[in-house]
Amino acid sequence: MDNKLMLMIPGPTPVPEAALLAMAKHPMGHRSKEFDGIFAECTENLKWLHQTSSDVLSLTVSGTGAMEAGIINFLSAGDRVLIGTNGKFGERWAEVAEAYGLNAEIIKAEWGQPLDPEHFREKLEADKDKQIKAVILTHSETSTGVLNDLETINRHVKAHGEALIMVDAVTSLGAVNIPMDAWGIDVIASGSQKAYMIPPGLGFVAVSPKAWEAYKTAKLPRYYLDLGKYRKEAAKNTTPFTPPVNMFFGLQVTLQMMKAEGLENVFARHKRLMTTTRAAVKALGLPLFAADDAASPAITSVMPPESVDAQKVRTLMRKRFDIALADGQDHLKGKIFRIGHLGFVGDRDILAAISSLEAVLRELGHEGYTPGAGVAAAAKFLAES
Amino acid sequence: MDNKLMLMIPGPTPVPEAALLAMAKHPMGHRSKEFDGIFAECTENLKWLHQTSSDVLSLTVSGTGAMEAGIINFLSAGDRVLIGTNGKFGERWAEVAEAYGLNAEIIKAEWGQPLDPEHFREKLEADKDKQIKAVILTHSETSTGVLNDLETINRHVKAHGEALIMVDAVTSLGAVNIPMDAWGIDVIASGSQKAYMIPPGLGFVAVSPKAWEAYKTAKLPRYYLDLGKYRKEAAKNTTPFTPPVNMFFGLQVTLQMMKAEGLENVFARHKRLMTTTRAAVKALGLPLFAADDAASPAITSVMPPESVDAQKVRTLMRKRFDIALADGQDHLKGKIFRIGHLGFVGDRDILAAISSLEAVLRELGHEGYTPGAGVAAAAKFLAES
Repeated sequence: MDNKLMLMIPGPTPVPEAALLAMAKHPMGHRSKEFDGIFAECTENLKWLHQTSSDVLSLTVSGTGAMEAGIINFLSAGDRVLIGTNGKFGERWAEVAEAYGLNAEIIKAEWGQPLDPEHFREKLEADKDKQIKAVILTHSETSTGVLNDLETINRHVKAHGEALIMVDAVTSLGAVNIPMDAWGIDVIASGSQKAYMIPPGLGFVAVSPKAWEAYKTAKLPRYYLDLGKYRKEAAKNTTPFTPPVNMFFGLQVTLQMMKAEGLENVFARHKRLMTTTRAAVKALGLPLFAADDAASPAITSVMPPESVDAQKVRTLMRKRFDIALADGQDHLKGKIFRIGHLGFVGDRDILAAISSLEAVLRELGHEGYTPGAGVAAAAKFLAES
Repeated sequence: MDNKLMLMIPGPTPVPEAALLAMAKHPMGHRSKEFDGIFAECTENLKWLHQTSSDVLSLTVSGTGAMEAGIINFLSAGDRVLIGTNGKFGERWAEVAEAYGLNAEIIKAEWGQPLDPEHFREKLEADKDKQIKAVILTHSETSTGVLNDLETINRHVKAHGEALIMVDAVTSLGAVNIPMDAWGIDVIASGSQKAYMIPPGLGFVAVSPKAWEAYKTAKLPRYYLDLGKYRKEAAKNTTPFTPPVNMFFGLQVTLQMMKAEGLENVFARHKRLMTTTRAAVKALGLPLFAADDAASPAITSVMPPESVDAQKVRTLMRKRFDIALADGQDHLKGKIFRIGHLGFVGDRDILAAISSLEAVLRELGHEGYTPGAGVAAAAKFLAES
């Protein structure tokens, strides 16, 4: 059906009507008292969301731009950094490091596997001269649906004492607990089209006091992505460059919604959506791509057996039930499909997706499950949770 | 009155309802055929607007980000460049050049005066070794309302033969004729919240084949702002990083509107708005900040006599008539006010602004004009044009 699309990709995520309508208002001047007030409220609520009393800066960029800003503002060419890669986005930060001439050591895991915190511990413990300036990793690897063990890796970084920890939390911030100040995370990058529940167009970078210390001596060239400029203007409730004012109208609404729901409830909802989805997919006889103890609360990746074509699943889900699922990326293209359950998603959406998936599997001749098993598993889990 | 604001600042500019409502639609996946189609249509129409068969790339950035991308993709540290500065935005490009270690020579004019093309000619003619790699300037200087003589300066750059010409056309593209291919302009940067008639959040960079040649050897570090990545993906009707899909919904609508109006008509309308505004302001006994032969079609700056407080004019225009005018910037703060007539602005808006301005001047006790003279001058001009 036209205009019936239900987005279950890992972003853009569904946007609440109240936010869409707020964004449809006529723009206002970005150097006006009215806008300063909206910007100030959003910034306060962004700090609440990041659980920090330090800075959360808003940039007109995609998530990649936010993460690049988070990397290049605190380092200099030749600096030694550790980069964890186990998917497309980890690999992207390795590319950024290369573009800027950082001395990057890559800590790899297979796509679909989590990064091993022990590998970080070894490298960090061996670095007696404290030459490692930063540890860079993706928390929720959007390309695979793996959640890396940020808490443990961060503990090893803290034991090192010198290195900064820079986290791509694009699909984890607002979905799972990341207490920035309590853990001592130095840089957190995220993007508007994810748990923030608004369209793409705004990137966010949270910066710790320790990272600001590193900023003072960091020498990589930058201007538009120079976070010092954003910090200076944010202190006056404004921005160095024209902000996307209508995006802020939407952000104001969705941050208020998140506050009303409560951070713990937001996290619990995402966990419930993830666990329900995984239980139901298993009950339908489909293998999950990531292990239970490394599963992202934002995305569930499914690798169907040879007999079921992942591409066809997506095509039929779209054509018959107006549900958009995501394809695999790079070498996983056509091999997995990804179910997004991030942001403005409720239990009903998961039931709709699971029942639609069962109908599609039936049409594709998939066997090895009891009819109705997916919804039965989901309903059972929901009743108990 | 609440919700009655009429934006007459040089950006954000007013947005047509059709574009606002298009942007209020639920997002779609940015890796979907539907979005590819919208993106392809927008790109084609952007080329039409730039009068080019080369590339026009869309980035999630403000105008500054677009201009920085336009500079850093084609140069290397130490490269000699000429930068024209006669206002806040020209000065900004000098800052970008400094941040990236370019060897920049500044060609200055006072704020409110146009750049002198002769100064460019002299420098370019003296450069027998062809060491000047680029000439960088702002076409319409938003901070003052001055339109620099791009055509003549460009002619001198063409006579030099080697240097690229990079133009900040943020408040001129779509308001005044810039035939990119016919003139051989190498880089044109612009932003969505201006003549494009949508909110801020998208930046555009047009790139000539000659600039792409320079790209091959340019060494400044970049990743998010790497235009080569955007070009490669645009060939497949997509983007390297998540685009602001809802902004494209709006852009699709406003580019269609511009095509329906016709490029010559769009330019003629902006010229008429400018000339009408200037005639009316003069008739009200207020001095214009820029000379007639260097006036921007986007912004008219007014420097009232000592007896009339520019700040009070703006405050009363806002409070009594819900019209937002822009303040001066930097040392002109409080000394001038700027009337924006860019984008979705018609003759009626100018009459409303002029008649409101007269009412405000009366309230402030301004003398030296015949009551009604502003509207009379405007109406006379409109009748004749």
